Amino acid sequence: MSLSQPYLLFLGDAPDALAAKVAQGVKDWRPEASVGQFRLPGCNADMGLPDMSVAEAAAVGAKTLVIGVANRGGVISDAWKEVLIEALNAGMDVAAGLHALLRDQTELGAAAAGSGQSLYDVRLPTVHYPIADGKRRSGKRVLAVGTDCSCGKMYTTLAMEKEMRARGMNADFRATGQTGILITGDGVPLDAVVADFMAGAVESLTPANDDDHWDLIEGQGSLFHASYSGVTMALIHGGQPDALVLCHEPTRTHMRGLPHYPVLSLDDLRPLALQLAQIVNPDCRVTGCAINTAALSEAEAEAYLAETEARMGLPCVDPFRHGAGRLVDAL
Amino acid sequence: MSLSQPYLLFLGDAPDALAAKVAQGVKDWRPEASVGQFRLPGCNADMGLPDMSVAEAAAVGAKTLVIGVANRGGVISDAWKEVLIEALNAGMDVAAGLHALLRDQTELGAAAAGSGQSLYDVRLPTVHYPIADGKRRSGKRVLAVGTDCSCGKMYTTLAMEKEMRARGMNADFRATGQTGILITGDGVPLDAVVADFMAGAVESLTPANDDDHWDLIEGQGSLFHASYSGVTMALIHGGQPDALVLCHEPTRTHMRGLPHYPVLSLDDLRPLALQLAQIVNPDCRVTGCAINTAALSEAEAEAYLAETEARMGLPCVDPFRHGAGRLVDAL
Repeated sequence: MSLSQPYLLFLGDAPDALAAKVAQGVKDWRPEASVGQFRLPGCNADMGLPDMSVAEAAAVGAKTLVIGVANRGGVISDAWKEVLIEALNAGMDVAAGLHALLRDQTELGAAAAGSGQSLYDVRLPTVHYPIADGKRRSGKRVLAVGTDCSCGKMYTTLAMEKEMRARGMNADFRATGQTGILITGDGVPLDAVVADFMAGAVESLTPANDDDHWDLIEGQGSLFHASYSGVTMALIHGGQPDALVLCHEPTRTHMRGLPHYPVLSLDDLRPLALQLAQIVNPDCRVTGCAINTAALSEAEAEAYLAETEARMGLPCVDPFRHGAGRLVDAL
Repeated sequence: MSLSQPYLLFLGDAPDALAAKVAQGVKDWRPEASVGQFRLPGCNADMGLPDMSVAEAAAVGAKTLVIGVANRGGVISDAWKEVLIEALNAGMDVAAGLHALLRDQTELGAAAAGSGQSLYDVRLPTVHYPIADGKRRSGKRVLAVGTDCSCGKMYTTLAMEKEMRARGMNADFRATGQTGILITGDGVPLDAVVADFMAGAVESLTPANDDDHWDLIEGQGSLFHASYSGVTMALIHGGQPDALVLCHEPTRTHMRGLPHYPVLSLDDLRPLALQLAQIVNPDCRVTGCAINTAALSEAEAEAYLAETEARMGLPCVDPFRHGAGRLVDAL
């Protein structure tokens, strides 16, 4: 898996900004990787990149169209296919992390074959993972766990990697989802791994390492999310974290995709996540909270962070807004 | 999926009785289904059925050779293949629930094609499951959760189904593993389902039903087992149990397959499993304990059950040894 850059970020008909979190991640963490964005009518997401047609992107050198939008269920619509075929015929590869695979779309396979371009389904595991053995291994690991899905876990671990590398520390972000894999070019598409091998896949992703090395493991799902909690559990038990960073979005009124479930609190998450992590690593500690304050004003954010920090007795920051320095200090 | 009976139970070179739990389950819950057992040299399991060669089993009418032994990792050895090919050539189907698929073994595929017999891989999901929506649904559900893998969860729910049906109650055992599927001919092979769809598969298996209907959901793994805890979590959140039955094997010194992990107690399991279940069903209750006392004498078993019942304040029985009546009473 090695995607050619630069990218054209495809936002499709994303109904809201969260639906385009793949594109947002690429834009935020590899801003030099994309020449522009492509949007269909009705798209409500905007990366702040130049809007381009496929022909315009090809003319300025785009090598890969990256599908930066995720639909629940992951369907590739006919409107999308038209654009993807145009990109293949214009000499670009196409990469995606959707449940529905590019390679399974007959028209796309034909267009790729005809143009000599490649289809990359980063969602699909490409190796056979082992069953987890639960053995302790050298090196240190941080895992981000959230009160909900899509509340900033990937951003938190990417920001910590950036900060640790800037300090000369030995640290690697470990991607467990399609956005992270598209950003780093490597990782485990955990939600597409067969159940029995989930924890083993996480062990493979975070192997024994130097004593001073830190893995920054991207979290997935939430222990409180009925649809995906099993994936979160496998991350906790496969990742054997030494440190947990709790992630939260304070304006969310219900669990993402589950309008009948309220979002629980950091106070609920802390003891549960720690208890589960200590089953595999009794030395695990909760070291900080990462709050996604994107929906709050600066003053609201500071007030919320101060109140939360006082209540939790832990460093509480928005790593995207204010940097991850204090989360790294706490390690 | 509809297997032809009677069976020849294949025990292979099972290193111990636990490795042959598939065969044991078929033998215990559908004793009329098998004409005999087939054992290779070195087999340490025994179902108490007549030992037969393939030819002898065919002569007394066996229709399907059922692989009743599971290896960690699920490899089909050359010694096994010889026997399976002999069975196909003798006019039997072959059914298995292993990770390694019968259909992927070239020699078996050829022998099946040549003989006109079928290969059944009950481990493989045959439908596409949805993502869980977490909505409450009508009917009642019991889920068995264990302190470890292989500690009696399937037996407990099968025994409760038997007892409830004997009382004229409206109840169905819901299989989530290969043994259960081989016994009932239906179910979800949960450990082979892709991570994102685990909880949705459990929702599909236990749909809305009559208000007086009970699903008896077979448990898998353990919240305390590093390799498989994610599967257990998906069962709790997909199954939305109204009642949890805690399962335990009191002589186990370490977690199955993980010699560096001690087995935790029912007292550890109770609050954790209940807290997680109440995320999706606030009315969930722990209603009893099922103790696998197979390794204890009658006197030891009675003493252990009495002590545990007094400590937990819940009905504590060995459903296989003493019946599931008190577990059903507690519902």
